[in-house]
Amino acid sequence: MNINALTKLSYGMYVVCTKDEKQYCGCIANSLIQITAEPATIAVSINHNNYTNECIKKTKEFSICVLGENVNPLIIGTFGFRSARNFNKFENIKYEIFEGLPVCTDSCAYLLCKLIDKSETNTHTIFLSQVVQSEITKDDTPMTYAYYHNVIKGKSPKNAPTYIPQ
Amino acid sequence: MNINALTKLSYGMYVVCTKDEKQYCGCIANSLIQITAEPATIAVSINHNNYTNECIKKTKEFSICVLGENVNPLIIGTFGFRSARNFNKFENIKYEIFEGLPVCTDSCAYLLCKLIDKSETNTHTIFLSQVVQSEITKDDTPMTYAYYHNVIKGKSPKNAPTYIPQ
Repeated sequence: MNINALTKLSYGMYVVCTKDEKQYCGCIANSLIQITAEPATIAVSINHNNYTNECIKKTKEFSICVLGENVNPLIIGTFGFRSARNFNKFENIKYEIFEGLPVCTDSCAYLLCKLIDKSETNTHTIFLSQVVQSEITKDDTPMTYAYYHNVIKGKSPKNAPTYIPQ
Repeated sequence: MNINALTKLSYGMYVVCTKDEKQYCGCIANSLIQITAEPATIAVSINHNNYTNECIKKTKEFSICVLGENVNPLIIGTFGFRSARNFNKFENIKYEIFEGLPVCTDSCAYLLCKLIDKSETNTHTIFLSQVVQSEITKDDTPMTYAYYHNVIKGKSPKNAPTYIPQ
């Protein structure tokens, strides 16, 4: 078995945002797919260790920011490699609020999602959710995970479903 | 709500293959993600109308062929737009058998998967599966769904989760 074959799967780059009692929070996700067309539903896999996972279970709602190839790298650094448990990730990020949920201004599209159901695995939760609002916000090519790795030379944090120990 | 915002999500292009009592079958899928790293698990969404869906429920195993940008378009035409109910899709396609499952020779990687669990929605089944074998088989860039739409000018069949009526 060659575990690197799994790097041939394609993904986008997203920030999944929600909130706790005190502030907004979010994390980078790439394992996200549309499940049904009508109604529009999506599934996203988030590690148990991500604080965002815990918060989505409480709020039952979240936003998805679709990152484009020209996104400010600060967004990936802030949401991908730090924890919101003891840090306000939105402090230095431009964002707007839609239906009570934050959306990074520097996204090329966003979706607002309501939790329908969740499945647990040993490390990740799969959140099945209905898309209740969605807009295209910027003319940019959506960033793929391959682009992030090959062009931006980005790495996967340990919590990613696609993490491969080097 | 702008439903076209959902076209900003990124995917790969895959053939999901399994078999019935008489022959091998398969269909094109794009809604596929890795869920956990250890053990390696994936989730794939397949329409109830796809014969492959019915067969995976019986065999509880399937292969994933990762299509590259230089794949023979015959593969997409055969697996994406015809039904295996009354047609042997593998008749004109080169393939090999691994652990009893067919893999299109013209793929850039493949995964062999055992069904762990499934979730039903009104139109699609999400198959959660463990990857029990995986190999990289060809040096080609994995085809994204965006490449299929923008470069090959391909269309989405009605059974796709990402289908948008024109």
